[in-house]
Amino acid sequence: MEQADVAKMMAGPAVVNIGLELFAETLQRAGRPVEMVAWRPPPGGAASGSALDALETPEVDQATSESLARLLGAEPWLVDVRPARDVVPNMAPDLLLHAGPPIGWERMCGPMRGAVSGALVSEGLAPDLSAAEHLAASGTIRFQPCHHHNAVGPMAGLLTASMPVLVVENRTAGNQAYSSLNEGLGKVLRYGANGPDVLERLAWMRDVLGPALGEAVRRAGGVDVGALAGQAVQMGDECHNRNRAASVLLLKTLAPHLAGGGLGRAELCRLFEFIGGNEHFFLNVGMAACKAALDSADDVPLSAMVTTMARNGTDFGIRVSGLAGRWFSAPAELPRGLYFPGFSESDGNPDIGDSAITETAGLGAFAMAAAPAIVQFIGGTPAQALAYTSEMYEITLGQSEAYRVPILDFAGTPTGIDIRKVVRAGLSPIINTGIAHREPGIGQIGAGLVRAPMACFERALTALAEAAAGDG
Amino acid sequence: MEQADVAKMMAGPAVVNIGLELFAETLQRAGRPVEMVAWRPPPGGAASGSALDALETPEVDQATSESLARLLGAEPWLVDVRPARDVVPNMAPDLLLHAGPPIGWERMCGPMRGAVSGALVSEGLAPDLSAAEHLAASGTIRFQPCHHHNAVGPMAGLLTASMPVLVVENRTAGNQAYSSLNEGLGKVLRYGANGPDVLERLAWMRDVLGPALGEAVRRAGGVDVGALAGQAVQMGDECHNRNRAASVLLLKTLAPHLAGGGLGRAELCRLFEFIGGNEHFFLNVGMAACKAALDSADDVPLSAMVTTMARNGTDFGIRVSGLAGRWFSAPAELPRGLYFPGFSESDGNPDIGDSAITETAGLGAFAMAAAPAIVQFIGGTPAQALAYTSEMYEITLGQSEAYRVPILDFAGTPTGIDIRKVVRAGLSPIINTGIAHREPGIGQIGAGLVRAPMACFERALTALAEAAAGDG
Repeated sequence: MEQADVAKMMAGPAVVNIGLELFAETLQRAGRPVEMVAWRPPPGGAASGSALDALETPEVDQATSESLARLLGAEPWLVDVRPARDVVPNMAPDLLLHAGPPIGWERMCGPMRGAVSGALVSEGLAPDLSAAEHLAASGTIRFQPCHHHNAVGPMAGLLTASMPVLVVENRTAGNQAYSSLNEGLGKVLRYGANGPDVLERLAWMRDVLGPALGEAVRRAGGVDVGALAGQAVQMGDECHNRNRAASVLLLKTLAPHLAGGGLGRAELCRLFEFIGGNEHFFLNVGMAACKAALDSADDVPLSAMVTTMARNGTDFGIRVSGLAGRWFSAPAELPRGLYFPGFSESDGNPDIGDSAITETAGLGAFAMAAAPAIVQFIGGTPAQALAYTSEMYEITLGQSEAYRVPILDFAGTPTGIDIRKVVRAGLSPIINTGIAHREPGIGQIGAGLVRAPMACFERALTALAEAAAGDG
Repeated sequence: MEQADVAKMMAGPAVVNIGLELFAETLQRAGRPVEMVAWRPPPGGAASGSALDALETPEVDQATSESLARLLGAEPWLVDVRPARDVVPNMAPDLLLHAGPPIGWERMCGPMRGAVSGALVSEGLAPDLSAAEHLAASGTIRFQPCHHHNAVGPMAGLLTASMPVLVVENRTAGNQAYSSLNEGLGKVLRYGANGPDVLERLAWMRDVLGPALGEAVRRAGGVDVGALAGQAVQMGDECHNRNRAASVLLLKTLAPHLAGGGLGRAELCRLFEFIGGNEHFFLNVGMAACKAALDSADDVPLSAMVTTMARNGTDFGIRVSGLAGRWFSAPAELPRGLYFPGFSESDGNPDIGDSAITETAGLGAFAMAAAPAIVQFIGGTPAQALAYTSEMYEITLGQSEAYRVPILDFAGTPTGIDIRKVVRAGLSPIINTGIAHREPGIGQIGAGLVRAPMACFERALTALAEAAAGDG
């Protein structure tokens, strides 16, 4: 796929907005004339129009602002790493958590099926992959979204009882969120790979990496994830598909505590090699931090702020603060981007994973202006990276206080998606993402960009208008 | 000092050039009109004018291109850490190496005198600071520039026989260059501080850090410094006053080899804390890499490329490839920038240190477009950071292949200063720098920007024209 096609496909309707005004100021100060373009897309359809009218009230505004204030005020700290069964609410041995909105085995995409099979073998619930597939199809295994258990998982997002999870506590609200540990790139469970190397790595993560990390994090007295991600954003990360800076900053922070812990010298070396060799090690930490922040902003009656965007590889679902617990879903779309050698778009699976929690919290594609080098991984140009961030100010409620973009004169990233703004602007959130092979057992084959389906926001808008009418 | 003043002072004559054209393309692709300004400053004075004419020959062009090719083709690897006496050519117990062009005790500035006194005590040559000052003034201690020994040192740049030095080998040409280890910020020897804490740290660096790093570097089979700095430039470093990414990348690279080495657990923890707590740890590594690259480009007869820019806090000196070994000096200027609380410009010492080797090799202020967040440390705005890099394309010979700036569509940084271009454009190299207190014993009090004195380039130009005439 040509980069020009990506550009065309991803260009979106709105080009100039508040973000670009900030950028334009930067340029003007550098002595270059910049002309601002005033342009607004038409509002949504008739049904959305009346719902929009019904939701333009001080009550909805106030509730939505309250959600934003909780999101911006969150202070997520990594406080522990523990087996999921010890910390994740209502975790159970027969329970498999997965990414995205609820889905059963019969509708699961290839990579999620591959990950389910691998997870069942890894958990000791099935002797081999073939038996695991039969077990998964038998109905005796329960599947539930990570999001129903205060957890998030990238790509397939499989989480079982014995897997180690990152424990992130929002010190403002006191709530916790969880995520699995990142396995690295290539052939990994979350992309649907499930070979012996994948299972061996998962066992080492469970037996060695998880306990050692937990000890180091406790010795460190926790890690301020918001501050760390804030630094990383000023070092070219957007903390979804570019986590180079955040991953080494985390390693730097934990290194003395890992060295001072109980791990043997040989395992300590392996651990430094594993974390140091994985430029996405921070991803899951950041996701849990975003989840902890967004959970605290959830369940504010009448709030129009999005608290979840998640995909299971079949459906894309969102949840809204004022309609806590309800999913608004539509078919997941195919990301467009750069494929690894030997693969093409026809091999790609539709959008998958809970990692869009980063965009929901003002990171990921929303922060791409801070991470122009990411285009080497996902396609496009640095100018487009700037434009995506700038565009998202159009549909968000405010700017992050923690994540500031130097090239935008240190403006905060666009944060807090308002479903009213999305529908009114006809502009859906942009997400950057890894691309999994659509067949089980293969793994990652590329990375690119995708938009959240507009239908999710239109449906949520209608439901929120109904709720508001019910209240009135 | 106000940022607006800094802007005014540093704005320089040439605003728009090839670099900004690249940037403008980025903006135009994002849909914003950008108008290019065609403007050239007047050429230098009459004497310079005739020298310029004499140096516009195919022979000078070819020689200068050869220097650039050697600079761009260098492959600097960190291969060891050893006591200076074991590796630095002609090092001796009674020899103190210092930053910048040659200077004796009587003309040394305060921070260099402070560093000399501290170094003499640290080396065991004097029992205390008072005795050290008398010894330094007695004439029995020899002072020579680091640059005369294939070495470089930031700020005062003091190097004594027992200090550990980074050994960087240019694998293309086979030459080696050396630098001391970075002590951190604040009260440190290189800024002229010399209290008990400074001397205790130097002892630990000599006895523990140096040997441990040397072992780790050897176990790692060396570290590709060019590749590491190239990554760091895409992570917001310019590798002079912003080394956050490079420092953690180096730590990541060495962590398994440090853990696998002979150091005890407690010292291993301290070492991780020391390196992890010093965001400038990479600076000296990068400086030695730049020195190794530039030394291989030196001594090409008739070449107009600058191979050294260095300051001793009193004089600013440059050296040119076609006039190997000759210094062209002028009084060092006072940097303008941001001062730490409690200090102001009247406390600042004139420009000091060999660290302008980074600008000489296409990093530092020449790479500031990649590091807009640096303005928080040195003053100014992100737009100015962009403008400094863009401006430097005007006086350089080519673009780095290793150091690429995402926001400039991955253009290489401006690299290889041509004294003809400097004089013709009336535009002298921009340098960012730490600011030392002008009194000995105090330390760093700020950071900012400064320009190399034009007189150095005019004198070198005249000398090169004379050499060319002698050849003819």
